[in-house]
This record gives sequence, structure tokens and C-alpha cells, in this order.
Amino acid sequence: MREQRGNIHMATAQKSITLNGVAVGDLLSTVEAVKTTPSIAKFKFRIKNQWEDGSRNHSTVTTLCGANQELTHPAPFRIEADEPGILLGKDLAPNPVEHLLHALASCITTSMVYHASARGIQINAIESSFEGDLDLHGFLDLDPTVRKGYQAIRVNFKISADVPDDRLEEIVKLGTGHSPVFDSLTNGVPISVTAERL
Amino acid sequence: MREQRGNIHMATAQKSITLNGVAVGDLLSTVEAVKTTPSIAKFKFRIKNQWEDGSRNHSTVTTLCGANQELTHPAPFRIEADEPGILLGKDLAPNPVEHLLHALASCITTSMVYHASARGIQINAIESSFEGDLDLHGFLDLDPTVRKGYQAIRVNFKISADVPDDRLEEIVKLGTGHSPVFDSLTNGVPISVTAERL
Repeated sequence: MREQRGNIHMATAQKSITLNGVAVGDLLSTVEAVKTTPSIAKFKFRIKNQWEDGSRNHSTVTTLCGANQELTHPAPFRIEADEPGILLGKDLAPNPVEHLLHALASCITTSMVYHASARGIQINAIESSFEGDLDLHGFLDLDPTVRKGYQAIRVNFKISADVPDDRLEEIVKLGTGHSPVFDSLTNGVPISVTAERL
Repeated sequence: MREQRGNIHMATAQKSITLNGVAVGDLLSTVEAVKTTPSIAKFKFRIKNQWEDGSRNHSTVTTLCGANQELTHPAPFRIEADEPGILLGKDLAPNPVEHLLHALASCITTSMVYHASARGIQINAIESSFEGDLDLHGFLDLDPTVRKGYQAIRVNFKISADVPDDRLEEIVKLGTGHSPVFDSLTNGVPISVTAERL
């Protein structure tokens, strides 16, 4: 950890530049601000979801809490979910397990870009593909030995950057090693659930 | 497990009806088809992601594999990701950890609706709220004892259904107990990653 921290600080000379679309100076200032006021590092992310009909529901993303402030997105974001016809939906939107792959892909990518930028690594392009295996014997209660969730997820990253071949994997590890969704999904998260009458 | 299976079969009399927007007959036929041909239960879900700039990237959802077939969504779905200004983005789309909450919410909701429908339970409305705690000391490598991912997620479901109060929690458990994303996120998933040059 100390070495990675060191790398972030080595980029201090580049405080005023934007690299890979990331305001590196602001990123380094954030690191310094968190060291001075640790409580600003605590964030709460939120969504509300509403069922529509059958396999269709949508989430609304309006507020978050971070840096000791209540924050509001400029306009609420709306994210839809449905199921393909073979899973009894109308196929009007990605399904929940496809959304999960997007959460994972977007998080690894952004984590990679932020941490590469902090280390002065220029990236030209990133493309990735994600595939997850799911066996409906779990969801349908047909076999208690088959889990309901993904059995495995395979990820491939293709990266264009001005680095030797052997550093490509290192760049990808900046993503997987820092991504909140990668950590959440590989190590699990405690989820508490309450229910009440509407 | 046997009892839940039994419950699904007790609904056989309702084969031709649609309940809560779910074609219950098709759901029961799926159960029977999987029993006859177990291999049709195996699905592969996929996305491709492309980095745009800084905190912005998007995923495209085009194909899946299920019931021994390659399937294509009617049109590719596109899902955007960004970060709020306080996390150095332009706030043009939900961020990855907000997408993760949507994946979780949509999956529990759909799982609840499908399994309640199979048991003949009519649901009038479902609303839910999700909140997750994240401490940037992890992402920023400032404290190795703080995880990168969500420390905890809290979920509240509000349900309108013609059932006694004490059965509300049972309905919610049909969701959490069957949801592939809930299982993936609480129990973890093995993720393998490869990297190559673009």
C-alpha cells in the first residue's frame, strides 16, 4: 500500500494537468484533503426502485452523501430493467444480471483510469468484455446444490497505451485492485433488509 | 427446497393466467422443461464496455446464451456511467456503485414478483430504497484496513399486497432468497481477468 501511495505522490509535479480526462490535480488534492479531514472520505450512495409490471422495474438515482454534504445529481437518473423473452419479459431493457456486469465493467474501468492517471500513465483506449455463467436450477429451486447467483465471471481487457506489453496487466490490476464493485462482488457485502406495508 | 418446489407446483391449476404481469403458465412450463432437459437452464450473460474519457464509459448489451441457443436482444442496450463532480466526473450518468445498487434492487424485485406469482400471491405495488456505505480511504490507498468496496448495504421494501402484515417479510424473502444478484453480492463470485493490447 505504501508503494502505491508513493506513486500517487510522485505525480505531484503534474498537479495542474488533466491526463486521460482526469483532473490529476484535483485527485491529488482529494488525497490531501482526506488526510487532513478523514470524515470527508465517507460516502453513502442511494437509489430508489419502483416495480412496474412483471419483469419491469426502474431505479431513480437522485441524491448521495459525501464529504460531509448531502449532494443532488443535476437531474435524477432513471435506470430501467426488464428480462428477455426467454425469461418471460418483454426485452425492453437490460436485465438485472446484465446491469451487474455493467456496474463491474464501469467500476474497474474508471478505477484503472483514475489510478493510471495519478501515476502519469497515458491511456489511449480501453475496451472490455464481460461474461457470467448462471444456472437456473438455482433460481427455480430445482437443485439446492446450484447457487442462485453467478457461478463465475470472465473479463477481458484490451488496452492501448504507450507502455511495454508486460505493463498492460499491471494497468488492469490498478483497476481490479482498486474497484469498489470488484471488491464488493469478489469478497461479498453484508446486506440488511427490512419490509413494511406500502 | 422441497417445500418451495411444492408451492410452485400447487399453482399448476393457474397455468393459463397472468398474475402480476408474469405469465405463470410459461414460468411453470419452464420448470418442467428444465426438469426434462437440464442443459437449457445454463445461461451466459454478456456486456461489452468502452471507455470514453475520464470517468465516462458505457456498456453495450447485445447477446446472451440460454436454453442452448445464442440469443440477441431486439436492439443493443446502451448503459452509461459517469461520476458526480465531487468524484471528479461530469455527473452525466449514474456511477458504477449506483449501478450496482440498481442491479441489486431490480433483481430482488423481479425475483420476488416471479416467485410470488408462482405461488398465486397478488401484489399491487412494490417500492424499495437502497443505501450503501463506502469509505474512500480504501480506494485512495490511504488505509489498508479499509476495504475498497461497500462496507454495508441497507435495503427497505414497501409492499402493497392482499396478505396479512406478517406475510410481507415472507414475500420479501422470496426476492432475497432467489435473487441471483443478491446471492452474487452477499456470497461473492470468482472473477477471472485477462489483459491484452488493443
